[in-house]
Amino acid sequence: MEALDSLIYKISRLPGLGPKSARRIAYHLLKNDAEFNKTLGEAIINIKDKVHPCPVCGIYTEHDICSICNDSSRNREFLCIVEETQDVNVIEDSGVYKGLYHVLGGAISILDGIYPENLRFKELDKRIAEGQFTEIIIATNPTDQGDTTAAYIKKLLSKYPNLHFSRIAQGLQAGGDIEFANHRALYQSFKNRLSF
Amino acid sequence: MEALDSLIYKISRLPGLGPKSARRIAYHLLKNDAEFNKTLGEAIINIKDKVHPCPVCGIYTEHDICSICNDSSRNREFLCIVEETQDVNVIEDSGVYKGLYHVLGGAISILDGIYPENLRFKELDKRIAEGQFTEIIIATNPTDQGDTTAAYIKKLLSKYPNLHFSRIAQGLQAGGDIEFANHRALYQSFKNRLSF
Repeated sequence: MEALDSLIYKISRLPGLGPKSARRIAYHLLKNDAEFNKTLGEAIINIKDKVHPCPVCGIYTEHDICSICNDSSRNREFLCIVEETQDVNVIEDSGVYKGLYHVLGGAISILDGIYPENLRFKELDKRIAEGQFTEIIIATNPTDQGDTTAAYIKKLLSKYPNLHFSRIAQGLQAGGDIEFANHRALYQSFKNRLSF
Repeated sequence: MEALDSLIYKISRLPGLGPKSARRIAYHLLKNDAEFNKTLGEAIINIKDKVHPCPVCGIYTEHDICSICNDSSRNREFLCIVEETQDVNVIEDSGVYKGLYHVLGGAISILDGIYPENLRFKELDKRIAEGQFTEIIIATNPTDQGDTTAAYIKKLLSKYPNLHFSRIAQGLQAGGDIEFANHRALYQSFKNRLSF
């Protein structure tokens, strides 16, 4: 069945969905209310028109400027640099941080064809030049790509004399178990060990 | 963000997707090519117009009559009754069966509000009355709902004198491990034990 196979193929290209789960969803849509399918399909088609990156920080928003950039109670001396808007959501949920953000839109990954010019570095440079930041908290992922991106950020911004740089701690996952830690986490947990 | 939250909620209502995987897919759509989103959205909206249950057997098809009902090489004395089209796909892939099918569109489940009149029993009754079937193979799922449905089928069709009824075997999953078998499978495997 051409239409059904084509739908299954399209669904299977979404992240986290293989051919089996795509097939299950497609058959669900066949049995589903046509009205639900219509609102879901339209929401998918229109999402990029309704939601766009904040021109200042890159967080996805429906407004001209995102609610964090617009919030005068946020500490404008701290800038936390992350890869994606999802990372902001997690940090915001934790309540650990009250400064501003900069979303790069990914991490540098030459193998995946993601070069610095594909990420929001130009906007970052401009913000630092015009802003009043004193500390840059680098919160890229604890991966090879995240490490490369962190190094690139530090090099790019080293021309600003009074900036303090930090990177969020890596090591064992808090609440996790050494038995199940991977080599990278163990290595970092020893390298970054603290006096006790 | 209203539009994004609404999209995430709609995606999370699809089977097998929780809020986290729905969020991941929604952010993927935001970064995605708008053209892909358009073809996916349209495919979801249009699938029910393009694909419909075969009026004879209930298998989803894009044609007037499905390819199995239309296939003159199939044995028209055997009718295999299943809950869903997906079950037909699995049986066809196995190559174990060459008769015709009847898709009920689900199983009787009073708690879920699925009564006999919501399933394709009227069509089944008519097919048996007009057809040349000799054996009815009941292939509903090995669940309480599947058992109820199997019993209902047998009662409904008991008025036809020359029909032989069978139900596909339940027990331990072939290739599986007794250690990991559930109580139901073990119970059925003992109850249906064969001479050896």
